[in-house]
Amino acid sequence: MKALVTAAGDEPGLRLDSVPEPEPGPGQALVAVAAVAVNRGELSVIGGLPPGSRLGWDVAGTVLRAAADGGGPAAGTRVLGLADLDGFAERVAIGTGRLAALPDGVDWPAAAALPVAGLTALYALRRAGRLLGRTVLVTGAAGGVGRIAVQLAAAAGARVIAWVGSAARTEGLAALGADVVDLYGTAPTGPVDVVLDSCGGEVLTQAFHHVVPGGTVVCFGNTARAELRLPADWGRARPGVSIHYVYLFDEITRQDVARALAFLVQMAADERIDPQVALVADWTDPAPALRRLQDRQVNGKVVLAL
Amino acid sequence: MKALVTAAGDEPGLRLDSVPEPEPGPGQALVAVAAVAVNRGELSVIGGLPPGSRLGWDVAGTVLRAAADGGGPAAGTRVLGLADLDGFAERVAIGTGRLAALPDGVDWPAAAALPVAGLTALYALRRAGRLLGRTVLVTGAAGGVGRIAVQLAAAAGARVIAWVGSAARTEGLAALGADVVDLYGTAPTGPVDVVLDSCGGEVLTQAFHHVVPGGTVVCFGNTARAELRLPADWGRARPGVSIHYVYLFDEITRQDVARALAFLVQMAADERIDPQVALVADWTDPAPALRRLQDRQVNGKVVLAL
Repeated sequence: MKALVTAAGDEPGLRLDSVPEPEPGPGQALVAVAAVAVNRGELSVIGGLPPGSRLGWDVAGTVLRAAADGGGPAAGTRVLGLADLDGFAERVAIGTGRLAALPDGVDWPAAAALPVAGLTALYALRRAGRLLGRTVLVTGAAGGVGRIAVQLAAAAGARVIAWVGSAARTEGLAALGADVVDLYGTAPTGPVDVVLDSCGGEVLTQAFHHVVPGGTVVCFGNTARAELRLPADWGRARPGVSIHYVYLFDEITRQDVARALAFLVQMAADERIDPQVALVADWTDPAPALRRLQDRQVNGKVVLAL
Repeated sequence: MKALVTAAGDEPGLRLDSVPEPEPGPGQALVAVAAVAVNRGELSVIGGLPPGSRLGWDVAGTVLRAAADGGGPAAGTRVLGLADLDGFAERVAIGTGRLAALPDGVDWPAAAALPVAGLTALYALRRAGRLLGRTVLVTGAAGGVGRIAVQLAAAAGARVIAWVGSAARTEGLAALGADVVDLYGTAPTGPVDVVLDSCGGEVLTQAFHHVVPGGTVVCFGNTARAELRLPADWGRARPGVSIHYVYLFDEITRQDVARALAFLVQMAADERIDPQVALVADWTDPAPALRRLQDRQVNGKVVLAL
């Protein structure tokens, strides 16, 4: 079968190649892939992998063969799932604990856009604890995870402040439920109970400045790749404050991923969240789409259709 | 009645003066004070207060008059309590929610040494969550709170690594239950699940370096008065890590302080913790003791007897 693998060459990229068919374990369903989403996290690893390496977490498709142990969705079921860096392929074996059935009305690109971004936003918000009636400041709000986090925080009853890096990145965020959309560093009106940060560095330091005593900071990325610097009064001025780092592939070892995926995709089916598919490209020519993702020129998710 | 108040002059200090008798509210007991403990936190505020200001959190004494609302200990009961910065006096009114009866065998200095240090250590350790069978690294382990934290962590079933600033400060820590006593920055053998830090600055950064993924850092002070600096991989190398700041006088607004005081003093009565009274001075001449506390020349608590 065909799969996208890392290409040799100066610029990190992906090319189609022939790879062996997957061999599902007893708890894995075999899925015929219809669409996959690409995450910036995958782009960042391409350069570090040897040419010919497989990639791919976000998958939507149809179950070709149910898991041999009898669990999970039956053959013919439309599903979304979280693959083990082998999802950019015609077929993939996925554990039934990382699959959920698609409700009618959710198309392939929307389903493929959800697993990594949706689970990351969901687990980061859950780590923050109480959200109802509180204020959540989301940095990097225009990104793939940020746009889902804004919607989930609003769905959880929070007032949402969306911070973005440029005026061009504000697009659509108010319609997603952000009460305020502002550039990084803009002082919010009113207290901030929760910061959800994927920027790190100076943006995180600026956001922390607005957290109230007892507040919570949840980081799930550090795109600045900068050290964490907080002023000397970081805790004393905010007694009870806590700072957390949530990494999806650690979090899923302790979570019911199938249930979370089912929740996310039902929210999409109910039009309570929009998976924010910004660009759908054919998987035989992924380079232009990947370049736009790398350069932060897409406000949302990049999906490749098979 | 007499009370210690802040003195005018070049050097921060305390002097005895006449002050009005306390007027207990309906939920407050009137306590005849027998001993008080001095915290470094109090020393640090002396310079910022106008001359003649009252001080004092840590109190042990005898209930002269029970609370008018009928709650709390009866007249004649020996108690320890957390006063509202007015405890360095012959008599003090304390809410019954911040008092506990002394078991036989706990003397005045031991009881007076417990409230601030014991509650701080207890609440900081509780914030860390699971302790049984885990490893706790305590920085500033030779200080008033540190010495209680070492004992409480050991009592909670943790392996305890005590970090101190100099060889002279290692005294007695092994006997208190520290499995390892080392100078700041010494690499521990084996994983560290919890860091309990009151130093901040470079010591905190060094300690953080040893925290495992999923680990917890609880800060309850920042004696370095330095900014928080952690390397760029602070979270990614430790998925699930969290950093908390616990401030006693915030924490007690949400806690059952009387119950915690009763627990701590029973632990002392059972000889499961030692309150670490390092020095007992007469309250009519506190200056030499305060100076030694300020200069970190006492390995434990400074108590003033009335």
